[in-house]
Amino acid sequence: MSNSELKHMQTLLPEWVETSRQQALHGKVASYIPELAKSPKDALGIHIVGAEGQVASAGDCGISFTMQSISKVFTLILALMDNGEEAVFAKVGMEPTGDSFNSMLKLELVQPGIPFNPLINAGAIAISSLIAGSSREEKSARVLDFFRNLSGNRALDYDNDVYLSEAKTANLNRSMAYFLKDKQVLQGEVEEVLDVYFRHCSISVTCADLARMALVMAHNGTDPVTGAELIPRRYVQIAKTFMITCGMYNASGEFAIQVGLPAKSGVSGGILAIVPGRYGIGVVGPSLHRKGNSIAGVHLLETLSRTFDLSLF
Amino acid sequence: MSNSELKHMQTLLPEWVETSRQQALHGKVASYIPELAKSPKDALGIHIVGAEGQVASAGDCGISFTMQSISKVFTLILALMDNGEEAVFAKVGMEPTGDSFNSMLKLELVQPGIPFNPLINAGAIAISSLIAGSSREEKSARVLDFFRNLSGNRALDYDNDVYLSEAKTANLNRSMAYFLKDKQVLQGEVEEVLDVYFRHCSISVTCADLARMALVMAHNGTDPVTGAELIPRRYVQIAKTFMITCGMYNASGEFAIQVGLPAKSGVSGGILAIVPGRYGIGVVGPSLHRKGNSIAGVHLLETLSRTFDLSLF
Amino acid sequence: MSNSELKHMQTLLPEWVETSRQQALHGKVASYIPELAKSPKDALGIHIVGAEGQVASAGDCGISFTMQSISKVFTLILALMDNGEEAVFAKVGMEPTGDSFNSMLKLELVQPGIPFNPLINAGAIAISSLIAGSSREEKSARVLDFFRNLSGNRALDYDNDVYLSEAKTANLNRSMAYFLKDKQVLQGEVEEVLDVYFRHCSISVTCADLARMALVMAHNGTDPVTGAELIPRRYVQIAKTFMITCGMYNASGEFAIQVGLPAKSGVSGGILAIVPGRYGIGVVGPSLHRKGNSIAGVHLLETLSRTFDLSLF
Amino acid sequence: MSNSELKHMQTLLPEWVETSRQQALHGKVASYIPELAKSPKDALGIHIVGAEGQVASAGDCGISFTMQSISKVFTLILALMDNGEEAVFAKVGMEPTGDSFNSMLKLELVQPGIPFNPLINAGAIAISSLIAGSSREEKSARVLDFFRNLSGNRALDYDNDVYLSEAKTANLNRSMAYFLKDKQVLQGEVEEVLDVYFRHCSISVTCADLARMALVMAHNGTDPVTGAELIPRRYVQIAKTFMITCGMYNASGEFAIQVGLPAKSGVSGGILAIVPGRYGIGVVGPSLHRKGNSIAGVHLLETLSRTFDLSLF
Repeated sequence: MSNSELKHMQTLLPEWVETSRQQALHGKVASYIPELAKSPKDALGIHIVGAEGQVASAGDCGISFTMQSISKVFTLILALMDNGEEAVFAKVGMEPTGDSFNSMLKLELVQPGIPFNPLINAGAIAISSLIAGSSREEKSARVLDFFRNLSGNRALDYDNDVYLSEAKTANLNRSMAYFLKDKQVLQGEVEEVLDVYFRHCSISVTCADLARMALVMAHNGTDPVTGAELIPRRYVQIAKTFMITCGMYNASGEFAIQVGLPAKSGVSGGILAIVPGRYGIGVVGPSLHRKGNSIAGVHLLETLSRTFDLSLF
Repeated sequence: MSNSELKHMQTLLPEWVETSRQQALHGKVASYIPELAKSPKDALGIHIVGAEGQVASAGDCGISFTMQSISKVFTLILALMDNGEEAVFAKVGMEPTGDSFNSMLKLELVQPGIPFNPLINAGAIAISSLIAGSSREEKSARVLDFFRNLSGNRALDYDNDVYLSEAKTANLNRSMAYFLKDKQVLQGEVEEVLDVYFRHCSISVTCADLARMALVMAHNGTDPVTGAELIPRRYVQIAKTFMITCGMYNASGEFAIQVGLPAKSGVSGGILAIVPGRYGIGVVGPSLHRKGNSIAGVHLLETLSRTFDLSLF
Repeated sequence: MSNSELKHMQTLLPEWVETSRQQALHGKVASYIPELAKSPKDALGIHIVGAEGQVASAGDCGISFTMQSISKVFTLILALMDNGEEAVFAKVGMEPTGDSFNSMLKLELVQPGIPFNPLINAGAIAISSLIAGSSREEKSARVLDFFRNLSGNRALDYDNDVYLSEAKTANLNRSMAYFLKDKQVLQGEVEEVLDVYFRHCSISVTCADLARMALVMAHNGTDPVTGAELIPRRYVQIAKTFMITCGMYNASGEFAIQVGLPAKSGVSGGILAIVPGRYGIGVVGPSLHRKGNSIAGVHLLETLSRTFDLSLF
Repeated sequence: MSNSELKHMQTLLPEWVETSRQQALHGKVASYIPELAKSPKDALGIHIVGAEGQVASAGDCGISFTMQSISKVFTLILALMDNGEEAVFAKVGMEPTGDSFNSMLKLELVQPGIPFNPLINAGAIAISSLIAGSSREEKSARVLDFFRNLSGNRALDYDNDVYLSEAKTANLNRSMAYFLKDKQVLQGEVEEVLDVYFRHCSISVTCADLARMALVMAHNGTDPVTGAELIPRRYVQIAKTFMITCGMYNASGEFAIQVGLPAKSGVSGGILAIVPGRYGIGVVGPSLHRKGNSIAGVHLLETLSRTFDLSLF
């Protein structure tokens, strides 16, 4: 059935992509990382993969883009695998904030000053400090290796220009990191932690890579194509829950109501979405809504979810 | 299968109730509404009902208690049925706040000053103003009638002492209501809107009533016992999504991770939880965690969800 | 000397008024109280009075306008005379907020939730509740009588249209009052307290009235013309200090640096300023700066203070 | 007269010091900079100097302590002398915040994100970036030289242990500095700016040094003993105004009402106070009130100001 559904999707996707692409006009490409500003504003691509590896795709799927915040889902998972639940949740909370992803308000206003969740910037920086490894190089190598395993793409690598652009302009992230250091949430050296963070944000992927990573999560951590057990099921469960409550920045509640799938967006315009038990989905559309999500990408996922009744709820 | 699972639950629940009941020591009974302070601190009861009306229950299920915030789920649904999605979401947002349920911070800090979601106090007050009816009496009568239909209990009624206690001491809710009036979120007369609000909060129920209301939602709006179509499926979907993202106050994220069921709590210690497609659950335990949820009730639901793998995620 | 200085001022004021009047273009007349929106935007008048009653004045001094927040200085003084320092400062603090005059943020964020100072709206409402009197009518009559004594103008009275306009549209003030009631800062009945507050805000004055009230404060509470001791010196000292730190809304710091005189502004465009030991000053200019002060009025006072070196600092 | 008044003060001070010293019990020595925690908790000293260099003093005046925030008054003045008013006030505002001295809330909440005033930490860091000099060493040397001139003490120098302790533990200041860098308030390299800041905070003084620096300000920038013109009068005026509105952290309003003198405190327990036209005062008492001011020092200044009627207001 999944197979025929994917075929049905394939017949509909090309036209939907053209319709959703119009939305790009109402958004903006992220420019705070100068390198990101070069992305094609009206690009839109989607790639869906099923349990036997069958595919539906449309639009600009050839584009490479950096994972940005999408990577936070997988560093969270790696930190859980490295440290266990208790150690991770001593450093980050489990609650959505209602604030912008780079807000520091709650760090100051709510004691004891730990980040509310691992998917806002402050939380993801705290998570980066929990990745096992004796040096920043080893930590980054472990992250990259994990991402390669999940995507089944051994060629996955950093976009060095974006990494450098990000490292140079990320003073707000530095500000957060020093705040966390002051509150003893971060143990390590700030620049080392940030380096791990900037690197995992700048891993370059395609929609197909994202879809494949999502597929592993859709099957509770086991790659359904290879049968490899890559993530313990409980950690997939935790990550999927966060994707519902906090995955789409401070538009997560709306996305849960309108789309209803665990998903994570990045300021590069990428979105990774999961149809539990069935599909992995990768989307890219660099023009962003005011709250930071791909405006055309969200529109496309909404059409898809409504038409095929994919919402978890 | 559902039948044998319920029987299995029935064998386990009594002991679990006794274990979870210990948690009550670490919490406090709500006292800001004086009438609530009279609730028995270490009471704990649970009632689970399946699609054919079969039941598992344990503990202090005989207790009556007021719905308080649990009622907000159903006034939201009634407001949706009365006004449609567009009109409702012009007055309340779809996002969790990360703040306390009675916080006014985001009303002032985030333009245009509409409540972030319908399950915090400010949002539920805005929803009360959307209930159709030509007078406060008619609005309240429509709410009560709707709740009676959902619970299948035509004897459902207000607890007048709690209503009066609430109306008299609710100056913080009045403050919110006048703020919303100033921002033109509330159209009607403030005291009339609040009267509707206080009344629906003080509807008195048992765990069995909550379980039955939850069962209707578990079956997408149709009472599986009577076959009556009581709520359009889309509105159940919206409500269930809000229950996941905002249903347990600013501990909703943690509850989603640890329990993973759509649920709504009230300061009376009640919790309504949904196992989609299967069960409706009602819980009561008046001793509250710092964030306002029944401390023993949450513990019990966690045990239940983990043992029977009930999480949506 | 004061006499010849006033004569010197009189020769300069007419031209200065014309220059400062240009600033009115860059501001806006307050409109949140509908009645205020009718004020002439480019009006500007100033009236300065010395210890022997000698006068310098220029511009539109014939205009009547309501005191609005200027009245808060004198209700604070009356509350101090009625209750003493200790009782008053149990209900309001002594600190500037850095926030807008109608902000509620600090009420929620800073325990124990009492208004930071008596010149922001929340603080002035708390002060209104401290005016002695057995009814709202008696309280308001005492306020009016006190204001008449200070201005030496027995004809001083309410502008009933502004009072009604204010009472009807003041839902944000109602919101604050109920918040304070919830925190037990307000003891009395909210609508009664607000009525006293709205009434004293709508007392109608001219620049000459303000100047005369300021003159009494400039002479430590004794009317230098009549010799009547109207305010204990310590309460004048307290009020003058608040006028420096909080008198010009959240532009008080800038006004202290650029003008350096104890002053209080109102959204009607009035400003009362004190040159200690010497003059009382009344200004009116309805076009307001973004932060709520008369834009032309502040410009005129700046010119005056710089030219005659009037700053306290 | 000033002379006989000082003699009168001298007769009263020793007993007052013993009375105020009792207050130290109710406070705490600052410990967030480890080196400061070594200060003697119940020490209290005061030194008052008049225009001809005559002196009244009592208590533990032999103690050396670091200037900490007191230095911010003089780096503000130096930055004004180096850059002029316009350039300085492009980088810092003129308003009190109502928040703690190390709060970042308003940086995020109030556009355009420049520090509210030069006496909170964020503002003082911005001011440090405005000190002229081609290197951090030259900037620090210019600051030290200026402070030596003002105090007439060419031996004034850094306390190197405090400087190192401060530099090592100041992650919250680093967080602020990177935030300001992100908002383009800071132009230079963050660690260089912070080094200038940490150094001027750790200049070691006695009460006599502070009193002498205050005396120069009390005489509008001219050292009355030597006749040297050290600061333009306008910049003294600006600094004195800030000392009234923001000099005593978020207890400045209360201090203005209870003492009424331009003053600046530091977390080392020092206070510099000015009696305009007359005296310079230096106080030290390491036990701090909750808001960061010397608890015994404030008590002593209150007694002094009330007895000799020194308030500006």
